[in-house]
Amino acid sequence: MFLYTKNFEEQKEKAMVGLRKALEEDKVDHDIIPLLEKINALDNYFTTSSCSGRVSVMEMPYFGDKLNSAWLGKWHREVTVEEVLGAIGKHKTGQLWFLVRSPILHVAARTMEDAVKLLNLSIGLGFKYSNIKSVSHKKLLVEIRSTERMDVPLGEGGELWVGEEYIERIVNLSNAQMRRFKGKLKRLEDEIGNLKK
Amino acid sequence: MFLYTKNFEEQKEKAMVGLRKALEEDKVDHDIIPLLEKINALDNYFTTSSCSGRVSVMEMPYFGDKLNSAWLGKWHREVTVEEVLGAIGKHKTGQLWFLVRSPILHVAARTMEDAVKLLNLSIGLGFKYSNIKSVSHKKLLVEIRSTERMDVPLGEGGELWVGEEYIERIVNLSNAQMRRFKGKLKRLEDEIGNLKK
Repeated sequence: MFLYTKNFEEQKEKAMVGLRKALEEDKVDHDIIPLLEKINALDNYFTTSSCSGRVSVMEMPYFGDKLNSAWLGKWHREVTVEEVLGAIGKHKTGQLWFLVRSPILHVAARTMEDAVKLLNLSIGLGFKYSNIKSVSHKKLLVEIRSTERMDVPLGEGGELWVGEEYIERIVNLSNAQMRRFKGKLKRLEDEIGNLKK
Repeated sequence: MFLYTKNFEEQKEKAMVGLRKALEEDKVDHDIIPLLEKINALDNYFTTSSCSGRVSVMEMPYFGDKLNSAWLGKWHREVTVEEVLGAIGKHKTGQLWFLVRSPILHVAARTMEDAVKLLNLSIGLGFKYSNIKSVSHKKLLVEIRSTERMDVPLGEGGELWVGEEYIERIVNLSNAQMRRFKGKLKRLEDEIGNLKK
């Protein structure tokens, strides 16, 4: 038996202190704040972390080595070709990647029934990779996540493998993905109140 | 309350009938069969679906439209540049993508404790995107999944955006990802018996 229901109120209080601090320090993506507030206003849920989705240019020694990776550019909105070219211009070492990541929200639920309700709502609104991320005495954690993603190798060791025309293509595609998942976030914001019933 | 524990034996029996049929029809990736057998030999688990990981060349009207997508080439192993170029040569319409997907296994567990044990083992062995995919009266389903992935746009409407040299680069990268996740599958196969204890 996991004791997450018993510990829910205490954990929610802690998380809300952390969120207020993050908000004061301007560490929360602005366009996701209204959604976080709506979730935390619900009796049976609270948020523990979030990202509103992003596009980035990243340098890494090899794929998956997050520890030694460095962002040359990172945006939580649509980007211009010039912005991406500017970031690419800083490339010096390791592998260079163009990445798109869908929004991701971690939401603790009071009971398994509450978790499954949120999971099903999220999947129904297009967040098809949503799942229960972890179950422990402290927390029962739902992950809300969508399928949009790009992982495009651009070069290595200071050398570029693609030209400006290709960058323009992938910027257009990534902006389309960005519009798509921002639309899903908006729908979630509109519908999340239904979990009150 | 979800009744998956009560329905476990009945659901396992059904799944095993389905698996035997899929094996007879040669519909299961060969290199994952020993792992499936080891999981299904455990009292508290059974597999419901699996893919051993793949690289593919796909044509789709737009990203995410699975329904109208077509594989021009699909492999569950390392590939050669020639094989990939052969698949690309068939491109005529829509968006053309080069895709790598990590292995994915769906495993039903008898109890939440069993699910969390499998989840933690999988994450510990490098399957960092593992999660509890769904909870219902019928099944409590763990998804075992890793982070390796590539989504590279190659062209559109019959036009190619990249040259052969770039294809060679991404084939090398995808083969490295393939070796990495096949290694993880092997480790899971070695360790899965520990769940018997």
